[in-house]
Amino acid sequence: MGKTKIGPSILIYPMPTLLVGAEVDGKPNFLAIAWCGIANGTPPMISVALRHERYTLKGIKQNGTFSVNVPSVDLVKEADYCGVRSGANADKVAVCNFNVFYGEVEKAPLIEQCPINLECHVVHMLELGSHCLIVGRIEETHVSDDCLTDGRPDVDKIRPFIFVSPPRRYQAFGEVVAKAFSVGLELEK
Amino acid sequence: MGKTKIGPSILIYPMPTLLVGAEVDGKPNFLAIAWCGIANGTPPMISVALRHERYTLKGIKQNGTFSVNVPSVDLVKEADYCGVRSGANADKVAVCNFNVFYGEVEKAPLIEQCPINLECHVVHMLELGSHCLIVGRIEETHVSDDCLTDGRPDVDKIRPFIFVSPPRRYQAFGEVVAKAFSVGLELEK
Repeated sequence: MGKTKIGPSILIYPMPTLLVGAEVDGKPNFLAIAWCGIANGTPPMISVALRHERYTLKGIKQNGTFSVNVPSVDLVKEADYCGVRSGANADKVAVCNFNVFYGEVEKAPLIEQCPINLECHVVHMLELGSHCLIVGRIEETHVSDDCLTDGRPDVDKIRPFIFVSPPRRYQAFGEVVAKAFSVGLELEK
Repeated sequence: MGKTKIGPSILIYPMPTLLVGAEVDGKPNFLAIAWCGIANGTPPMISVALRHERYTLKGIKQNGTFSVNVPSVDLVKEADYCGVRSGANADKVAVCNFNVFYGEVEKAPLIEQCPINLECHVVHMLELGSHCLIVGRIEETHVSDDCLTDGRPDVDKIRPFIFVSPPRRYQAFGEVVAKAFSVGLELEK
């Protein structure tokens, strides 16, 4: 099988579309990001990469707190909007009709319409180049009641979506391929 | 809409399934991880979180290099296997029949069968708790020729898959929902 070198590229699939929330100058704002990953298991931590000039980053630095909200596919327009416009010159909460609520972490605004909401405290900030990599400790997680089955988060009700880039589009989750931590053991037979 | 607090939880969708490669004591090994994110744009950097006791982490610390390989859905068994077994007592390359090749970065083994391969140098390591968060600079990216269209990576040929947890299963990519950096602007109309 032949291979082609395309130079150092950010080419990872799948990527999420998440809404990072912060209060900037006292007002809630949300930014769509795909550059996010789980950073630690115990205690639970998440990493998000934001371009230095991002308006939302200003708020995270002001408060040392932020939120991460997982949108459902019903919110694809709102999530996209939060990626193309800046809070510096748009009231994203108003345009998107977000109902904002708060949990225990101060100045970490949460979006009621998003089925999952994480409240975070900043524990590390790495200035890496074009972006600041923020590691946050997840202090609390909220799940919409209509996305629970037997009290547990149910991804088929949450209906998250994928950011696919290239070619810069959003896709739903598709067919179930296999059971994890299980199917691989067939190779030992 | 009601919300239920479920305590600090790692609840992000979608997550990838990626194969992190390293040479451990001079021998290539691969570990499946979902805890990975893009960390920086310029220069391109990626973050991966590995449990401290992971065999692969030993190799990354020995060499200061690693690889990230994106499997296609055809490799779901192999990817899963690389998540459930440890290189300390299994020869994953042999069991999975991986054809290993190398690029410019020393001791960063790449899997020919994976459509995308990233070669990385470690630039940061954060000891966070249960996991070590490794930030790597992507030095080169390889794409399988049969996954290119007009010389560019084509996700419909790459056919990556999603790690969905809970409930711990793999899913294919589904229907295209919308065009990114575009559909959100409809909200301004």
